[in-house]
Amino acid sequence: MRVYGAAMNTNRRITLAQRPDGPVAAECFAADEVDVPVPGPGQILVEVSWLSIDPTIRGWMAYDTYLPAIEIGAEIRSGGLGKVIESNNDKIPVGSTVFGTVGWQQYAVLGADAMVVPEGVEPEAALSVFGVTGLTAYFGLLDIGRPVEGETVLVSGAAGATGSVVGQIAKIKGCRVVGLAGSDEKCAWLVDQLGYDAAINYKTENVRKAINQHCPKGVDVFFDNVGGDILEDAIANLALRGRVVMCGAISGYNDSVPAPGPNNLTTLISMRGRMEGFIILDYFARSGEAIADMGGWIMEGKLTYATDVVEGLDNAPEALDRLFTGANAGKVMVKL
Amino acid sequence: MRVYGAAMNTNRRITLAQRPDGPVAAECFAADEVDVPVPGPGQILVEVSWLSIDPTIRGWMAYDTYLPAIEIGAEIRSGGLGKVIESNNDKIPVGSTVFGTVGWQQYAVLGADAMVVPEGVEPEAALSVFGVTGLTAYFGLLDIGRPVEGETVLVSGAAGATGSVVGQIAKIKGCRVVGLAGSDEKCAWLVDQLGYDAAINYKTENVRKAINQHCPKGVDVFFDNVGGDILEDAIANLALRGRVVMCGAISGYNDSVPAPGPNNLTTLISMRGRMEGFIILDYFARSGEAIADMGGWIMEGKLTYATDVVEGLDNAPEALDRLFTGANAGKVMVKL
Repeated sequence: MRVYGAAMNTNRRITLAQRPDGPVAAECFAADEVDVPVPGPGQILVEVSWLSIDPTIRGWMAYDTYLPAIEIGAEIRSGGLGKVIESNNDKIPVGSTVFGTVGWQQYAVLGADAMVVPEGVEPEAALSVFGVTGLTAYFGLLDIGRPVEGETVLVSGAAGATGSVVGQIAKIKGCRVVGLAGSDEKCAWLVDQLGYDAAINYKTENVRKAINQHCPKGVDVFFDNVGGDILEDAIANLALRGRVVMCGAISGYNDSVPAPGPNNLTTLISMRGRMEGFIILDYFARSGEAIADMGGWIMEGKLTYATDVVEGLDNAPEALDRLFTGANAGKVMVKL
Repeated sequence: MRVYGAAMNTNRRITLAQRPDGPVAAECFAADEVDVPVPGPGQILVEVSWLSIDPTIRGWMAYDTYLPAIEIGAEIRSGGLGKVIESNNDKIPVGSTVFGTVGWQQYAVLGADAMVVPEGVEPEAALSVFGVTGLTAYFGLLDIGRPVEGETVLVSGAAGATGSVVGQIAKIKGCRVVGLAGSDEKCAWLVDQLGYDAAINYKTENVRKAINQHCPKGVDVFFDNVGGDILEDAIANLALRGRVVMCGAISGYNDSVPAPGPNNLTTLISMRGRMEGFIILDYFARSGEAIADMGGWIMEGKLTYATDVVEGLDNAPEALDRLFTGANAGKVMVKL
């Protein structure tokens, strides 16, 4: 017989009420309270402590992507951290903190693929630089972009969770790094705090000219989180054998009719360019490499991370909205 | 003192009268007669015998590409074959046949980079399968597309000079091969003569549905000579880790305002896809590999080539037009 305190009789969830068509509206969400789920053989029950808020959630709400769409009435799918309060798995003891697909709810059942967060790693670090966004930055830049010392790396969404790590890794690798962000404040942060060589405010500057000015030898690697017009402007400035790392295209995620692509893709022919997409799921087996490198860089003071924390499960929809309005600088996460 | 027959006192040329804006019109060309050029130290003088007619010529006429634009009043830049009639280069004897950038004219001076065509190679073979288009097919497919046995290869412009060789090499490599062409006659030729598994008439069929039908496991390699809507339809059918080889985009070469790109580029993210351009100039140093392989395949009867021959220097503009109207099947060349 399972015995918990009174507070544990119910599991509050934020669920999918309707699929978004355009921007994610409040009507897309509902809240309910259900029974605390029961872990099966090999599974664990966690009390969710932090949620990782990522642009991909909008896709999961809307349609099948690299994962099936969230079902109507189910909790919003989301990565996050939880403390293990019941374990049917010898390798994951009660009391440990794990990362997994917890969803927007107070209690979650996870399988054997839940990753134990090492002792001493702060939750903010676990969800940012050591989490999915940090791994995305590391493998996207190094495995797909393959920058070489002395090359120029351009990053869109540079003040975001992924972009802010990409630029710092590119600096560590000896590149000239230029970032695109949506406010003068973010641009100043990129240059003053993160060591970017230059930053461009895409809302107030002529992006194509500014890239040309700040990347006089052309763009060797464009790490793109945004897509749309910015992608076209970057391609127009591509260096010979330039690479476009397609990480995300947040500018288009809210479109109900897909926008046309860049009109200058033939630049990839004349410049012998490469454009390549990736999904971080494919790299989870190699996460040890990234964590070792990034852990070392943090200890050496070469890599810092920024978080944008929203308090309370019921505010998770608002936290998601911050990604699309560009209100955030750094990794958006919800503390329960 | 140089002494030639009477016919050699003048060099008839087809020159660039004005840059094309939209389709290449007759007004873009002029003809003149100038003195036969004189080879300098290390150079050779050739009597031009064949011209290679390639889509890239339209780009050279219009603007700077990977090579500077042709100057107004200069002869149209073009690859071709010529017989050496005067040589200041010990390695290139008088009487040999060479491939080089001869231009649309009767006589041309070439440098030491002129490539001697081995004895026994027919001019049609030298300009098609062993020429730039054959090298483009070979290296574009194998070095950029990297097909693996059992994969599906889709080719646009499949009945063209490059596409017709691409499909045959893909079959030799053990792939399922589907081609896109602009007439039922061409489609029948692809399947019946070149061994394509299926062919789609893009002018009469629903291209997206037809690709889906003929490539049930998705498109692993799309070798694209065309761009535009066909590129979007192919991306919509991309397999996991699919590759798009960007060879050309003839559908857009006549546009004075560039058309928007495909609206589904984010498929490259979810499918971990790669899109990559190349220019065959970069592979000239490795042409021996291609010629050895393709020569062997021709002897084994596995690789055939088709030519579309136009007679007479003054008909070169019409030959170029055949590429853009899709009138040709196989390599367009002009016999002087």
